[in-house]
Amino acid sequence: MRYPPSLALLIEELKRLPGIGQKNAQRLAFYLLKAPTERAEALSRAILEMRSRIGSCARCFNLAEEKLCPICQDPGRQSSYLCVVESPRDLMAIESTGQYRGRYHVLTGVLSPMKGIGPEDLTIGDLVHRVDDEKTEEVIIATNLDVEGEATSSYLVNLLKPKGIRITRLARGIPVGGSLENADQVTLRMALDGRNVV
Amino acid sequence: MRYPPSLALLIEELKRLPGIGQKNAQRLAFYLLKAPTERAEALSRAILEMRSRIGSCARCFNLAEEKLCPICQDPGRQSSYLCVVESPRDLMAIESTGQYRGRYHVLTGVLSPMKGIGPEDLTIGDLVHRVDDEKTEEVIIATNLDVEGEATSSYLVNLLKPKGIRITRLARGIPVGGSLENADQVTLRMALDGRNVV
Repeated sequence: MRYPPSLALLIEELKRLPGIGQKNAQRLAFYLLKAPTERAEALSRAILEMRSRIGSCARCFNLAEEKLCPICQDPGRQSSYLCVVESPRDLMAIESTGQYRGRYHVLTGVLSPMKGIGPEDLTIGDLVHRVDDEKTEEVIIATNLDVEGEATSSYLVNLLKPKGIRITRLARGIPVGGSLENADQVTLRMALDGRNVV
Repeated sequence: MRYPPSLALLIEELKRLPGIGQKNAQRLAFYLLKAPTERAEALSRAILEMRSRIGSCARCFNLAEEKLCPICQDPGRQSSYLCVVESPRDLMAIESTGQYRGRYHVLTGVLSPMKGIGPEDLTIGDLVHRVDDEKTEEVIIATNLDVEGEATSSYLVNLLKPKGIRITRLARGIPVGGSLENADQVTLRMALDGRNVV
């Protein structure tokens, strides 16, 4: 016997989710079958609500349910600092440290000649306008430390350098809790180059 | 910054799913945020459709979208064999072997004095009626091999024995691919007791 069609369909849809295989999808589907009706309905509704409500902040391209995201709306944020990230998830990772009180700019991706993604596909034009309009004093480039993130960083440095503002990049080095033994050579070299006086 | 409310709500709902923690729920929520609209809508709809369509088979209590499940509707199934399982998932596990051509009876649970689940909370009354009505020749008890499954099995044996039909239980022993070294003592003893002439 196969699964009833509606259950089989749900399992197929669940399998499309990242990291969810056949066994896991079956487990989730059976949970949703046995859960109280209001739980299944709440999940179903939450998916649609989220999709209909969330858009991009008109200024920084962070996730926003209104025209501007909560950070752009917050007058307590220092607009002289602009932290450039690839995605809203990276923004939230930095926010979770509670350390940064400046503003952000979300590129909505990285430069990737392989995938045909050029500067005009990202929000780089908007970034340049913001740096001019908002009297930015420091741009903190927080793209990922992979090949595409580094290439995007270099591109931004070349673009913004002529403006005479301070441009910084997140520190590279051994992660906290990490061991030298397990660190790759490039990271080790960067950790040496960036060594601090104690 | 916190997540936008609608995204936070979706993450909360995803976290209720079994085996989905905070990180995983975030990952799934962001996937659903970025996925094509039709994918998110299809998942949302599949949950509701499944809930509204699936009920219990009026005869064997398997999952069914119609009055009877596909197995009870299938005239090719031998009604002289009745395999008793705890849940539709167990039924599907047996079906997946392709070995069994009889019919099933789903108990919808197991006896559990601890949880206050007695015979009247399961479909045991229906099972007795079926054995009488359908001229069952053999009842194969396929409850799980844990304490509650074994207790339920004993109860059924005592109940059905007087009817003079054949009552069998799934074989217990070392699982295929399993090693004696890793098998527990009870399983080893059962494997010895149930040894076969080769």
